[in-house]
Amino acid sequence: MSCLFDKVTFIGMGLIGSSLARVLKNNNLCNKIIAVTRNPETKDKILSLNLADEVFFEAKEAVKDSDIVIIATPVSSIIKIIPDIEGFMKKGAILTDVGSVKGSIASIKVSNNIHFIPAHPIAGTEKSGPENGFAELFENRWCIITPLDRKDNEYKNSLDLVCEMWKIAGMRVEIMDPKRHDMVMALMSHLPHLIAYTIVGTAADLEENSGHDVLKYAAGGFRDFTRIAGSDPVMWRDIFFNNTEAVLECCQRFNEDLTMLQKAIRYKDSDSLLKWFERTRQIRREVVEYGQAQPENEKILLKGKKVN
Amino acid sequence: MSCLFDKVTFIGMGLIGSSLARVLKNNNLCNKIIAVTRNPETKDKILSLNLADEVFFEAKEAVKDSDIVIIATPVSSIIKIIPDIEGFMKKGAILTDVGSVKGSIASIKVSNNIHFIPAHPIAGTEKSGPENGFAELFENRWCIITPLDRKDNEYKNSLDLVCEMWKIAGMRVEIMDPKRHDMVMALMSHLPHLIAYTIVGTAADLEENSGHDVLKYAAGGFRDFTRIAGSDPVMWRDIFFNNTEAVLECCQRFNEDLTMLQKAIRYKDSDSLLKWFERTRQIRREVVEYGQAQPENEKILLKGKKVN
Repeated sequence: MSCLFDKVTFIGMGLIGSSLARVLKNNNLCNKIIAVTRNPETKDKILSLNLADEVFFEAKEAVKDSDIVIIATPVSSIIKIIPDIEGFMKKGAILTDVGSVKGSIASIKVSNNIHFIPAHPIAGTEKSGPENGFAELFENRWCIITPLDRKDNEYKNSLDLVCEMWKIAGMRVEIMDPKRHDMVMALMSHLPHLIAYTIVGTAADLEENSGHDVLKYAAGGFRDFTRIAGSDPVMWRDIFFNNTEAVLECCQRFNEDLTMLQKAIRYKDSDSLLKWFERTRQIRREVVEYGQAQPENEKILLKGKKVN
Repeated sequence: MSCLFDKVTFIGMGLIGSSLARVLKNNNLCNKIIAVTRNPETKDKILSLNLADEVFFEAKEAVKDSDIVIIATPVSSIIKIIPDIEGFMKKGAILTDVGSVKGSIASIKVSNNIHFIPAHPIAGTEKSGPENGFAELFENRWCIITPLDRKDNEYKNSLDLVCEMWKIAGMRVEIMDPKRHDMVMALMSHLPHLIAYTIVGTAADLEENSGHDVLKYAAGGFRDFTRIAGSDPVMWRDIFFNNTEAVLECCQRFNEDLTMLQKAIRYKDSDSLLKWFERTRQIRREVVEYGQAQPENEKILLKGKKVN
């Protein structure tokens, strides 16, 4: 694989950042990796895992010579970091991120001297931290890129480089409008997470109030929910706070449907239930066909989880 | 392993029945397996997979010489079948089932000549049919048995045999009151399924109405939900219809919590969200410690799914 960048700076090196750093290293896609973290423990982990050549506590210093700066922190930090660092980057360098929300990030004003390319690699496990990353995390997953409305060739070349990087990581890259991205994600990821967080908390309350150990019987359904509800709290708070409208809109629709199904159960309306369940079963088949639910992919996830 | 039964009759041989039949065969736990199905195609499958020695269309004939009759059909059929067949069984034989709801089953009147032992092996995948069963399905899972209030030794011996059978299948067996079983299951399994069915339908509606292909981006959260929402429609309708009170009660609590979290998102109440998410993360850890979420178990499930 040919080298894409000389120097790469990661601001934040958790699950996503460290996984991408592994991809860059494994494929010799750059000559030097610089990482930024505020946490001395994380710095030690990054160095002992050999994920970066240098680790800085201060972002401004760490970005100045780099060809590409990749911000891989929770969304609220991304929003704060971009205006702080863009003036310290070299002219023509690429500034990109991995945030799960794109509207509030893509609308940040960045100098035309910098090639700002908001991106969202849709991949993850419920684990956080550099020790839980792995290069295969991105394989066969989607990466949605929401570029600015710029026609200049320099910007286009940078966009191509970012696309190329994620393709080498194994992703299927798609260009999308940031608003549409946020609606799709609200539905496919943010609402499911909110629901999982809710139901696991509801169960814990019931266990506490009843004094019985309910959780040890965690069966198929609930077990999957606990995995989702084990995701990073700060990251998810940020997502909900930065995609509020789309999440609440989806939530409203979900509530209407749940009310309808509750009523169908109460009044033993067999036809409505069977019709609904047959349809969702058909959707499962479609999702499997889309290749996002293959056992192969799920195995990769399991492999990732076993690291911890 | 010593032989537990001479003749075993399965009424219904889908995922659970065929998996248990595989366990019986692999461990030589019986001398003869008889299966009952109404479907000629299923009969052919059972015979070609060598899951039973004989297959009947009529239950009454199939039960008469058996030492144990295992009803492994959807709950509504279990409720209809028990009164139909108990008079045709031999004196002292065991009648058991695998239904996911126990209150409505355990309350059926059965002659004292028959040892009626309601049971619920908590195991499954979203696949149905004998071709999707596998002997490892039950490993490390719970089997909850809700015996009748009988003190006679003959009944106790039969109860021991049923416990032994499920232990050999790899299950952890627990005796429980049927009402408590139904509440635990409403929370740990039935509500999660109802929620998953709802959200997958909500997403499908939004996709249809927006004309965009949203489902192809199915990310971590949603993908897990589609798997749950791909479960057998008739089986799940029956569960909701036979555990209505407990399911609606849990649903009500879930709704209250979801409303609270929606409000916290709308008003950017960071403390409430973080507190909730930290707690659910802790619960994930507990569930993992309970051994119900080990990668080993999940791998077994994946193995099962790969059969299809």
